[in-house]
Amino acid sequence: MRRIRLVVAYDGTNYHGWQYQPNAVTIEEVLNKALTELLREPIAVIGASRTDAGVHARGNVAVFDTENRMAADKICLAVNQRLPEDIRVQSSGEVAPDWHPRKQRCVKTYEYKILNRRIEVPDKRLYTYHCYYDLDLEKMRRAASFIVGEHDFKSFCSAKTQVTDTVRTVYSLNVERDQEDVITIRITGSGFLYNMVRIIAGTLLWAGTGLIRPEEVAEILAAEDRRKAGPTAPAKGLTLIRMFYPDEMQEQAEKP
Amino acid sequence: MRRIRLVVAYDGTNYHGWQYQPNAVTIEEVLNKALTELLREPIAVIGASRTDAGVHARGNVAVFDTENRMAADKICLAVNQRLPEDIRVQSSGEVAPDWHPRKQRCVKTYEYKILNRRIEVPDKRLYTYHCYYDLDLEKMRRAASFIVGEHDFKSFCSAKTQVTDTVRTVYSLNVERDQEDVITIRITGSGFLYNMVRIIAGTLLWAGTGLIRPEEVAEILAAEDRRKAGPTAPAKGLTLIRMFYPDEMQEQAEKP
Repeated sequence: MRRIRLVVAYDGTNYHGWQYQPNAVTIEEVLNKALTELLREPIAVIGASRTDAGVHARGNVAVFDTENRMAADKICLAVNQRLPEDIRVQSSGEVAPDWHPRKQRCVKTYEYKILNRRIEVPDKRLYTYHCYYDLDLEKMRRAASFIVGEHDFKSFCSAKTQVTDTVRTVYSLNVERDQEDVITIRITGSGFLYNMVRIIAGTLLWAGTGLIRPEEVAEILAAEDRRKAGPTAPAKGLTLIRMFYPDEMQEQAEKP
Repeated sequence: MRRIRLVVAYDGTNYHGWQYQPNAVTIEEVLNKALTELLREPIAVIGASRTDAGVHARGNVAVFDTENRMAADKICLAVNQRLPEDIRVQSSGEVAPDWHPRKQRCVKTYEYKILNRRIEVPDKRLYTYHCYYDLDLEKMRRAASFIVGEHDFKSFCSAKTQVTDTVRTVYSLNVERDQEDVITIRITGSGFLYNMVRIIAGTLLWAGTGLIRPEEVAEILAAEDRRKAGPTAPAKGLTLIRMFYPDEMQEQAEKP
Protein backbone atom coordinates (compact mmCIF):
# COMPACT_ATOMS: atom_id res chain seq x y z
CA MET A 1 0.00 0.00 0.00
CA ARG A 2 1.38 3.40 -1.00
CA ARG A 3 0.26 6.86 0.01
CA ILE A 4 0.07 9.38 -2.85
CA ARG A 5 -0.07 13.12 -2.43
CA LEU A 6 -1.77 15.39 -4.94
CA VAL A 7 -1.63 19.14 -5.40
CA VAL A 8 -5.06 20.11 -6.67
CA ALA A 9 -6.27 23.28 -8.44
CA TYR A 10 -9.93 24.01 -9.06
CA ASP A 11 -12.43 26.62 -10.03
CA GLY A 12 -14.91 26.40 -7.17
CA THR A 13 -17.75 28.08 -9.10
CA ASN A 14 -19.63 24.89 -9.91
CA TYR A 15 -19.00 22.99 -6.68
CA HIS A 16 -20.46 22.93 -3.21
CA GLY A 17 -17.02 23.10 -1.69
CA TRP A 18 -14.47 20.39 -1.05
CA GLN A 19 -16.14 18.08 1.40
CA TYR A 20 -18.46 15.26 0.41
CA GLN A 21 -22.17 16.01 0.74
CA PRO A 22 -24.98 13.61 -0.09
CA ASN A 23 -27.01 15.96 -2.30
CA ALA A 24 -24.47 18.26 -3.93
CA VAL A 25 -21.44 17.91 -6.17
CA THR A 26 -18.16 18.50 -4.35
CA ILE A 27 -14.49 18.48 -5.33
CA GLU A 28 -13.77 15.53 -3.03
CA GLU A 29 -16.47 13.42 -4.62
CA VAL A 30 -15.37 14.17 -8.18
CA LEU A 31 -11.73 13.43 -7.32
CA ASN A 32 -12.67 10.16 -5.62
CA LYS A 33 -14.69 9.08 -8.63
CA ALA A 34 -11.93 9.88 -11.14
CA LEU A 35 -9.23 8.18 -9.03
CA THR A 36 -11.43 5.14 -8.38
CA GLU A 37 -11.96 4.71 -12.12
CA LEU A 38 -8.32 5.26 -12.94
CA LEU A 39 -6.83 2.99 -10.28
CA ARG A 40 -9.64 0.40 -10.33
CA GLU A 41 -10.07 0.28 -6.58
CA PRO A 42 -12.13 2.39 -4.20
CA ILE A 43 -10.22 5.60 -3.46
CA ALA A 44 -11.04 8.09 -0.72
CA VAL A 45 -8.91 11.22 -0.61
CA ILE A 46 -8.09 13.15 2.56
CA GLY A 47 -8.00 16.86 1.84
CA ALA A 48 -5.73 19.37 3.56
CA SER A 49 -8.23 22.20 3.36
CA ARG A 50 -11.97 21.68 3.13
CA THR A 51 -12.68 24.83 1.17
CA ASP A 52 -16.19 26.30 1.22
CA ALA A 53 -18.65 26.36 -1.65
CA GLY A 54 -17.48 28.74 -4.37
CA VAL A 55 -13.92 29.07 -3.08
CA HIS A 56 -11.15 28.35 -5.59
CA ALA A 57 -7.77 26.67 -5.19
CA ARG A 58 -4.45 26.73 -6.96
CA GLY A 59 -2.68 24.46 -4.52
CA ASN A 60 -4.87 22.45 -2.21
CA VAL A 61 -3.32 19.16 -1.08
CA ALA A 62 -4.87 15.71 -0.79
CA VAL A 63 -3.60 12.21 -0.08
CA PHE A 64 -4.95 8.73 -0.71
CA ASP A 65 -3.79 5.15 -0.37
CA THR A 66 -3.60 2.72 -3.23
CA GLU A 67 -2.43 -0.79 -4.10
CA ASN A 68 -2.15 0.17 -7.75
CA ARG A 69 1.43 0.28 -9.02
CA MET A 70 1.07 3.14 -11.49
CA ALA A 71 4.13 5.43 -11.22
CA ALA A 72 3.24 8.07 -8.63
CA ASP A 73 4.21 11.05 -10.79
CA LYS A 74 2.15 9.71 -13.72
CA ILE A 75 -1.11 9.66 -11.75
CA CYS A 76 -1.35 13.42 -12.16
CA LEU A 77 -1.66 13.44 -15.96
CA ALA A 78 -3.70 10.25 -16.04
CA VAL A 79 -6.33 11.43 -13.59
CA ASN A 80 -6.66 14.79 -15.36
CA GLN A 81 -7.95 12.88 -18.38
CA ARG A 82 -10.88 11.76 -16.22
CA LEU A 83 -11.55 15.06 -14.46
CA PRO A 84 -13.76 17.93 -15.63
CA GLU A 85 -11.67 20.85 -16.86
CA ASP A 86 -12.43 22.97 -13.80
CA ILE A 87 -10.41 20.55 -11.63
CA ARG A 88 -6.76 19.92 -12.47
CA VAL A 89 -4.27 17.94 -10.45
CA GLN A 90 -1.01 19.89 -10.67
CA SER A 91 1.35 17.20 -9.40
CA SER A 92 1.40 13.77 -7.75
CA GLY A 93 4.03 11.95 -5.75
CA GLU A 94 4.54 9.28 -3.12
CA VAL A 95 4.79 10.25 0.56
CA ALA A 96 5.35 8.28 3.76
CA PRO A 97 2.39 6.01 4.67
CA ASP A 98 1.67 8.10 7.78
CA TRP A 99 1.90 11.49 6.09
CA HIS A 100 -1.34 13.33 6.85
CA PRO A 101 -2.14 16.71 5.32
CA ARG A 102 -3.91 18.09 8.41
CA LYS A 103 -1.93 16.51 11.26
CA GLN A 104 1.21 18.58 11.01
CA ARG A 105 2.33 22.17 10.78
CA CYS A 106 1.22 23.84 7.60
CA VAL A 107 1.66 27.39 6.35
CA LYS A 108 -1.16 28.46 4.06
CA THR A 109 -1.34 31.28 1.57
CA TYR A 110 -4.66 32.66 0.34
CA GLU A 111 -5.52 35.45 -2.06
CA TYR A 112 -8.70 37.48 -1.93
CA LYS A 113 -9.37 39.45 -5.11
CA ILE A 114 -11.52 42.56 -5.45
CA LEU A 115 -12.37 44.16 -8.79
CA ASN A 116 -12.40 47.84 -7.92
CA ARG A 117 -13.94 49.77 -10.76
CA ARG A 118 -17.27 51.29 -11.55
CA ILE A 119 -18.45 48.59 -13.93
CA GLU A 120 -17.72 44.90 -13.74
CA VAL A 121 -15.56 43.14 -16.35
CA PRO A 122 -17.17 39.86 -17.43
CA ASP A 123 -14.03 37.72 -17.45
CA LYS A 124 -13.25 38.64 -13.83
CA ARG A 125 -16.74 37.92 -12.50
CA LEU A 126 -16.08 34.37 -11.27
CA TYR A 127 -12.82 35.12 -9.45
CA THR A 128 -13.23 38.59 -7.96
CA TYR A 129 -15.68 40.40 -5.74
CA HIS A 130 -16.85 43.55 -7.47
CA CYS A 131 -16.59 46.70 -5.37
CA TYR A 132 -18.10 49.79 -6.97
CA TYR A 133 -16.72 52.23 -4.38
CA ASP A 134 -13.20 53.58 -4.73
CA LEU A 135 -10.97 51.76 -2.31
CA ASP A 136 -8.09 53.58 -0.62
CA LEU A 137 -5.17 51.20 -0.89
CA GLU A 138 -3.12 52.97 1.78
CA LYS A 139 -5.94 52.69 4.30
CA MET A 140 -6.32 49.00 3.50
CA ARG A 141 -2.58 48.47 3.99
CA ARG A 142 -2.60 50.34 7.27
CA ALA A 143 -5.58 48.28 8.46
CA ALA A 144 -3.76 45.11 7.33
CA SER A 145 -0.72 45.98 9.44
CA PHE A 146 -2.73 45.37 12.64
CA ILE A 147 -3.65 41.85 11.50
CA VAL A 148 -0.07 40.67 11.01
CA GLY A 149 1.43 38.76 13.95
CA GLU A 150 0.12 36.40 16.62
CA HIS A 151 -3.34 37.40 17.81
CA ASP A 152 -6.55 35.95 19.14
CA PHE A 153 -8.62 36.09 15.96
CA LYS A 154 -11.95 35.34 17.63
CA SER A 155 -13.45 38.49 16.07
CA PHE A 156 -12.42 37.16 12.66
CA CYS A 157 -13.95 33.74 13.01
CA SER A 158 -17.43 32.62 12.05
CA ALA A 159 -19.57 32.44 15.20
CA LYS A 160 -20.63 28.97 13.99
CA THR A 161 -17.24 27.43 14.77
CA GLN A 162 -16.64 25.01 17.63
CA VAL A 163 -12.92 25.77 17.84
CA THR A 164 -11.90 27.03 21.27
CA ASP A 165 -8.31 28.09 20.65
CA THR A 166 -8.63 31.06 18.32
CA VAL A 167 -5.02 32.24 18.50
CA ARG A 168 -3.33 32.20 15.12
CA THR A 169 -0.27 33.80 13.51
CA VAL A 170 -0.47 35.81 10.32
CA TYR A 171 3.02 35.98 8.80
CA SER A 172 2.25 38.44 6.05
CA LEU A 173 -0.67 40.36 4.62
CA ASN A 174 -0.11 42.38 1.46
CA VAL A 175 -2.51 44.51 -0.53
CA GLU A 176 -1.64 45.24 -4.17
CA ARG A 177 -3.51 46.77 -7.10
CA ASP A 178 -2.81 45.74 -10.69
CA GLN A 179 -3.34 47.50 -14.02
CA GLU A 180 -6.71 45.86 -14.46
CA ASP A 181 -8.16 47.39 -11.27
CA VAL A 182 -7.88 44.13 -9.36
CA ILE A 183 -6.87 44.52 -5.72
CA THR A 184 -5.26 41.36 -4.36
CA ILE A 185 -5.14 40.73 -0.62
CA ARG A 186 -2.48 38.05 -0.11
CA ILE A 187 -2.28 36.48 3.31
CA THR A 188 0.05 33.83 4.70
CA GLY A 189 -0.37 32.28 8.11
CA SER A 190 0.07 29.30 10.38
CA GLY A 191 -3.55 28.26 10.02
CA PHE A 192 -6.84 30.02 9.62
CA LEU A 193 -10.12 29.92 11.49
CA TYR A 194 -13.43 29.29 9.77
CA ASN A 195 -14.11 32.18 7.34
CA MET A 196 -11.11 34.07 8.74
CA VAL A 197 -9.68 35.23 5.41
CA ARG A 198 -13.09 36.30 4.11
CA ILE A 199 -13.82 38.25 7.32
CA ILE A 200 -10.40 39.92 7.12
CA ALA A 201 -11.19 40.83 3.48
CA GLY A 202 -14.58 42.23 4.54
CA THR A 203 -12.91 44.29 7.26
CA LEU A 204 -10.23 45.62 4.90
CA LEU A 205 -13.07 46.57 2.53
CA TRP A 206 -14.58 48.59 5.39
CA ALA A 207 -11.25 50.32 5.93
CA GLY A 208 -10.77 50.92 2.19
CA THR A 209 -14.15 52.63 1.84
CA GLY A 210 -13.62 54.70 4.99
CA LEU A 211 -16.38 52.99 6.96
CA ILE A 212 -13.86 52.41 9.75
CA ARG A 213 -10.49 54.00 10.47
CA PRO A 214 -7.56 51.59 9.92
CA GLU A 215 -6.67 51.87 13.62
CA GLU A 216 -10.04 50.42 14.57
CA VAL A 217 -8.82 47.02 13.42
CA ALA A 218 -6.79 46.87 16.66
CA GLU A 219 -9.99 47.45 18.63
CA ILE A 220 -11.86 44.83 16.61
CA LEU A 221 -9.15 42.27 17.41
CA ALA A 222 -9.19 43.20 21.11
CA ALA A 223 -12.99 42.88 21.30
CA GLU A 224 -12.85 39.13 20.54
CA ASP A 225 -16.36 39.48 19.16
CA ARG A 226 -17.37 38.45 15.64
CA ARG A 227 -19.99 41.22 15.52
CA LYS A 228 -17.30 43.92 15.63
CA ALA A 229 -15.51 42.85 12.42
CA GLY A 230 -16.60 43.44 8.84
CA PRO A 231 -18.83 41.16 6.78
CA THR A 232 -17.71 37.81 5.41
CA ALA A 233 -16.65 38.73 1.87
CA PRO A 234 -18.18 36.53 -0.88
CA ALA A 235 -16.59 33.14 -1.52
CA LYS A 236 -15.85 33.69 -5.21
CA GLY A 237 -13.05 36.20 -4.47
CA LEU A 238 -11.07 33.66 -2.43
CA THR A 239 -8.38 31.30 -3.73
CA LEU A 240 -6.25 28.91 -1.68
CA ILE A 241 -2.88 29.51 -3.32
CA ARG A 242 -0.45 27.25 -1.51
CA MET A 243 0.04 24.82 1.38
CA PHE A 244 3.56 24.66 2.69
CA TYR A 245 4.72 21.98 5.16
CA PRO A 246 7.79 23.40 6.93
CA ASP A 247 8.71 20.20 8.77
CA GLU A 248 8.84 18.32 5.52
CA MET A 249 11.16 20.88 4.01
CA GLN A 250 13.31 20.47 7.11
CA GLU A 251 13.48 16.72 6.52
CA GLN A 252 14.40 17.25 2.90
CA ALA A 253 17.08 19.74 3.90
CA GLU A 254 18.48 17.20 6.35
CA LYS A 255 18.89 14.57 3.69
CA PRO A 256 22.55 14.22 2.70
CA MET B 1 -34.20 60.45 -32.56
CA ARG B 2 -30.80 60.11 -30.94
CA ARG B 3 -27.96 57.73 -31.71
CA ILE B 4 -26.32 56.15 -28.68
CA ARG B 5 -22.94 54.46 -28.68
CA LEU B 6 -22.07 51.67 -26.27
CA VAL B 7 -18.74 50.13 -25.36
CA VAL B 8 -19.50 46.49 -24.61
CA ALA B 9 -17.48 43.84 -22.75
CA TYR B 10 -18.43 40.17 -22.71
CA ASP B 11 -17.29 36.70 -21.93
CA GLY B 12 -17.98 34.90 -25.19
CA THR B 13 -17.98 31.41 -23.65
CA ASN B 14 -21.73 31.01 -23.57
CA TYR B 15 -22.58 32.76 -26.84
CA HIS B 16 -22.59 31.88 -30.49
CA GLY B 17 -20.78 35.09 -31.32
CA TRP B 18 -22.05 38.62 -31.79
CA GLN B 19 -24.34 38.39 -34.76
CA TYR B 20 -27.99 37.41 -34.54
CA GLN B 21 -28.77 33.81 -35.46
CA PRO B 22 -32.20 32.23 -35.44
CA ASN B 23 -31.34 29.15 -33.39
CA ALA B 24 -28.55 30.23 -31.06
CA VAL B 25 -28.04 32.84 -28.36
CA THR B 26 -25.83 35.73 -29.47
CA ILE B 27 -24.53 38.92 -27.85
CA GLU B 28 -26.46 41.09 -30.29
CA GLU B 29 -29.74 39.39 -29.49
CA VAL B 30 -29.27 39.64 -25.72
CA LEU B 31 -28.31 43.33 -25.98
CA ASN B 32 -31.30 44.09 -28.19
CA LYS B 33 -33.65 42.40 -25.76
CA ALA B 34 -32.28 44.24 -22.70
CA LEU B 35 -32.31 47.63 -24.47
CA THR B 36 -35.80 47.05 -25.86
CA GLU B 37 -37.09 46.31 -22.37
CA LEU B 38 -35.27 49.26 -20.82
CA LEU B 39 -36.21 51.86 -23.42
CA ARG B 40 -39.68 50.45 -24.18
CA GLU B 41 -39.27 50.56 -27.93
CA PRO B 42 -37.78 48.09 -30.41
CA ILE B 43 -34.00 48.49 -30.39
CA ALA B 44 -31.59 47.01 -32.93
CA VAL B 45 -27.91 47.59 -32.28
CA ILE B 46 -25.26 47.83 -35.01
CA GLY B 47 -22.04 46.23 -33.84
CA ALA B 48 -18.57 47.38 -34.82
CA SER B 49 -17.06 43.92 -34.75
CA ARG B 50 -19.09 40.76 -35.27
CA THR B 51 -16.92 38.54 -33.12
CA ASP B 52 -17.04 34.78 -33.63
CA ALA B 53 -18.51 32.20 -31.28
CA GLY B 54 -16.42 31.91 -28.14
CA VAL B 55 -14.42 35.12 -28.70
CA HIS B 56 -14.40 37.62 -25.82
CA ALA B 57 -14.46 41.42 -25.80
CA ARG B 58 -13.36 44.15 -23.47
CA GLY B 59 -14.26 47.00 -25.77
CA ASN B 60 -16.52 46.17 -28.67
CA VAL B 61 -18.62 49.10 -29.88
CA ALA B 62 -22.28 49.24 -30.86
CA VAL B 63 -24.75 51.96 -31.72
CA PHE B 64 -28.54 52.18 -31.75
CA ASP B 65 -31.20 54.81 -32.28
CA THR B 66 -33.84 55.69 -29.74
CA GLU B 67 -36.65 58.16 -29.11
CA ASN B 68 -36.36 57.56 -25.37
CA ARG B 69 -35.04 60.57 -23.48
CA MET B 70 -33.09 58.75 -20.81
CA ALA B 71 -29.74 60.52 -20.22
CA ALA B 72 -27.25 58.88 -22.60
CA ASP B 73 -24.59 58.23 -19.97
CA LYS B 74 -27.15 56.62 -17.64
CA ILE B 75 -28.17 53.94 -20.16
CA CYS B 76 -24.98 52.04 -19.38
CA LEU B 77 -25.78 51.34 -15.72
CA ALA B 78 -29.49 50.87 -16.40
CA VAL B 79 -29.04 48.28 -19.11
CA ASN B 80 -26.49 46.35 -17.06
CA GLN B 81 -29.29 45.66 -14.57
CA ARG B 82 -31.08 43.77 -17.34
CA LEU B 83 -28.09 41.94 -18.80
CA PRO B 84 -26.64 38.60 -17.73
CA GLU B 85 -23.41 39.06 -15.80
CA ASP B 86 -21.25 37.83 -18.68
CA ILE B 87 -22.18 40.93 -20.72
CA ARG B 88 -21.41 44.37 -19.30
CA VAL B 89 -21.80 47.69 -21.04
CA GLN B 90 -18.78 49.75 -20.01
CA SER B 91 -20.00 53.17 -21.13
CA SER B 92 -22.75 54.87 -23.13
CA GLY B 93 -22.93 58.27 -24.81
CA GLU B 94 -24.62 60.17 -27.61
CA VAL B 95 -22.99 60.40 -31.03
CA ALA B 96 -23.94 62.12 -34.30
CA PRO B 97 -27.02 60.55 -35.97
CA ASP B 98 -24.87 59.36 -38.89
CA TRP B 99 -22.04 57.92 -36.81
CA HIS B 100 -21.57 54.30 -37.94
CA PRO B 101 -19.15 51.96 -36.20
CA ARG B 102 -18.09 50.12 -39.37
CA LYS B 103 -18.17 52.92 -41.99
CA GLN B 104 -15.07 54.81 -40.93
CA ARG B 105 -11.44 54.24 -40.08
CA CYS B 106 -10.98 52.17 -36.98
CA VAL B 107 -7.87 50.89 -35.26
CA LYS B 108 -8.47 47.64 -33.40
CA THR B 109 -6.48 45.97 -30.67
CA TYR B 110 -6.80 42.27 -29.93
CA GLU B 111 -5.10 40.01 -27.41
CA TYR B 112 -4.56 36.31 -27.89
CA LYS B 113 -3.64 34.49 -24.67
CA ILE B 114 -1.81 31.18 -24.36
CA LEU B 115 -1.33 29.34 -21.09
CA ASN B 116 2.12 27.84 -21.52
CA ARG B 117 2.68 25.30 -18.79
CA ARG B 118 2.53 21.56 -18.47
CA ILE B 119 -0.80 21.39 -16.66
CA GLU B 120 -3.76 23.65 -17.13
CA VAL B 121 -4.94 26.04 -14.41
CA PRO B 122 -8.72 25.88 -14.04
CA ASP B 123 -9.37 29.62 -13.69
CA LYS B 124 -7.56 30.35 -16.96
CA ARG B 125 -9.37 27.69 -18.98
CA LEU B 126 -12.05 29.95 -20.47
CA TYR B 127 -9.73 32.76 -21.58
CA THR B 128 -6.51 31.07 -22.70
CA TYR B 129 -5.48 28.36 -25.10
CA HIS B 130 -3.45 25.75 -23.26
CA CYS B 131 -0.13 24.88 -24.90
CA TYR B 132 1.72 22.00 -23.27
CA TYR B 133 4.95 22.49 -25.24
CA ASP B 134 7.52 25.04 -24.08
CA LEU B 135 7.25 28.10 -26.26
CA ASP B 136 10.35 30.09 -27.18
CA LEU B 137 9.36 33.70 -26.65
CA GLU B 138 12.26 35.06 -28.67
CA LYS B 139 11.32 32.96 -31.67
CA MET B 140 7.72 34.12 -31.41
CA ARG B 141 8.85 37.75 -31.28
CA ARG B 142 11.13 37.31 -34.25
CA ALA B 143 8.29 35.68 -36.21
CA ALA B 144 5.99 38.52 -35.15
CA SER B 145 8.38 41.12 -36.56
CA PHE B 146 7.60 39.93 -40.10
CA ILE B 147 3.87 40.51 -39.58
CA VAL B 148 4.19 44.17 -38.59
CA GLY B 149 3.63 46.67 -41.40
CA GLU B 150 1.47 46.82 -44.53
CA HIS B 151 1.16 43.44 -46.19
CA ASP B 152 -1.18 41.34 -48.24
CA PHE B 153 -2.49 39.05 -45.50
CA LYS B 154 -4.22 36.60 -47.82
CA SER B 155 -2.29 33.71 -46.22
CA PHE B 156 -3.67 34.80 -42.84
CA CYS B 157 -7.30 34.96 -43.85
CA SER B 158 -9.89 32.21 -43.69
CA ALA B 159 -10.37 30.73 -47.16
CA LYS B 160 -14.11 31.15 -46.57
CA THR B 161 -13.96 34.94 -46.89
CA GLN B 162 -15.36 36.84 -49.88
CA VAL B 163 -13.13 39.86 -49.31
CA THR B 164 -10.95 40.62 -52.35
CA ASP B 165 -8.66 43.32 -50.95
CA THR B 166 -6.56 41.49 -48.40
CA VAL B 167 -4.00 44.22 -47.77
CA ARG B 168 -3.98 45.38 -44.16
CA THR B 169 -1.59 47.24 -41.86
CA VAL B 170 -0.45 45.83 -38.54
CA TYR B 171 0.85 48.70 -36.41
CA SER B 172 2.23 46.63 -33.57
CA LEU B 173 2.49 43.03 -32.48
CA ASN B 174 3.95 42.28 -29.04
CA VAL B 175 4.52 38.98 -27.29
CA GLU B 176 4.84 39.02 -23.48
CA ARG B 177 4.91 36.36 -20.81
CA ASP B 178 3.61 37.01 -17.29
CA GLN B 179 4.36 35.39 -13.93
CA GLU B 180 1.44 33.01 -14.31
CA ASP B 181 2.79 31.43 -17.51
CA VAL B 182 0.35 33.31 -19.71
CA ILE B 183 1.79 34.48 -23.02
CA THR B 184 -0.15 37.42 -24.43
CA ILE B 185 0.04 38.25 -28.13
CA ARG B 186 -1.18 41.83 -28.45
CA ILE B 187 -1.88 43.10 -31.94
CA THR B 188 -3.04 46.49 -33.18
CA GLY B 189 -3.99 47.18 -36.76
CA SER B 190 -6.06 49.12 -39.26
CA GLY B 191 -8.51 46.28 -39.70
CA PHE B 192 -8.36 42.53 -39.70
CA LEU B 193 -9.44 39.85 -42.12
CA TYR B 194 -11.67 36.97 -41.11
CA ASN B 195 -9.80 34.81 -38.52
CA MET B 196 -6.62 36.84 -39.14
CA VAL B 197 -5.63 37.25 -35.48
CA ARG B 198 -6.28 33.59 -34.73
CA ILE B 199 -4.25 32.46 -37.76
CA ILE B 200 -1.41 34.79 -36.75
CA ALA B 201 -1.58 33.27 -33.23
CA GLY B 202 -1.51 29.75 -34.71
CA THR B 203 1.51 30.68 -36.83
CA LEU B 204 3.37 32.24 -33.88
CA LEU B 205 2.64 29.01 -31.99
CA TRP B 206 4.35 27.12 -34.81
CA ALA B 207 7.35 29.43 -34.51
CA GLY B 208 7.38 29.15 -30.71
CA THR B 209 7.49 25.36 -30.78
CA GLY B 210 10.13 25.32 -33.54
CA LEU B 211 7.84 23.80 -36.15
CA ILE B 212 8.86 26.63 -38.50
CA ARG B 213 11.77 29.05 -38.40
CA PRO B 214 10.72 32.63 -37.59
CA GLU B 215 11.98 33.74 -41.01
CA GLU B 216 9.51 31.46 -42.74
CA VAL B 217 6.76 33.90 -41.78
CA ALA B 218 8.01 36.15 -44.59
CA GLU B 219 7.61 33.25 -47.04
CA ILE B 220 4.14 32.48 -45.71
CA LEU B 221 3.09 36.09 -46.31
CA ALA B 222 4.57 36.08 -49.80
CA ALA B 223 2.79 32.84 -50.72
CA GLU B 224 -0.66 34.49 -50.37
CA ASP B 225 -2.02 31.04 -49.64
CA ARG B 226 -4.00 30.17 -46.51
CA ARG B 227 -2.60 26.62 -46.55
CA LYS B 228 0.94 27.87 -45.83
CA ALA B 229 0.11 29.57 -42.52
CA GLY B 230 -0.46 27.93 -39.14
CA PRO B 231 -3.79 26.67 -37.82
CA THR B 232 -6.58 28.96 -36.66
CA ALA B 233 -5.99 29.10 -32.90
CA PRO B 234 -9.08 28.35 -30.76
CA ALA B 235 -11.58 31.17 -30.23
CA LYS B 236 -11.47 31.16 -26.43
CA GLY B 237 -7.94 32.66 -26.34
CA LEU B 238 -9.03 35.77 -28.27
CA THR B 239 -10.29 39.04 -26.79
CA LEU B 240 -11.18 42.20 -28.68
CA ILE B 241 -9.58 44.77 -26.40
CA ARG B 242 -10.27 48.13 -27.98
CA MET B 243 -11.72 49.96 -31.00
CA PHE B 244 -10.19 53.35 -31.66
CA TYR B 245 -11.66 55.81 -34.18
CA PRO B 246 -8.82 58.15 -35.19
CA ASP B 247 -10.99 60.59 -37.20
CA GLU B 248 -13.21 61.12 -34.24
CA MET B 249 -10.24 61.94 -32.05
CA GLN B 250 -9.17 64.38 -34.73
CA GLU B 251 -12.58 66.09 -34.57
CA GLN B 252 -12.36 66.27 -30.81
CA ALA B 253 -8.87 67.70 -31.02
CA GLU B 254 -10.11 70.36 -33.46
CA LYS B 255 -12.79 71.57 -31.08
CA PRO B 256 -11.78 74.86 -29.48
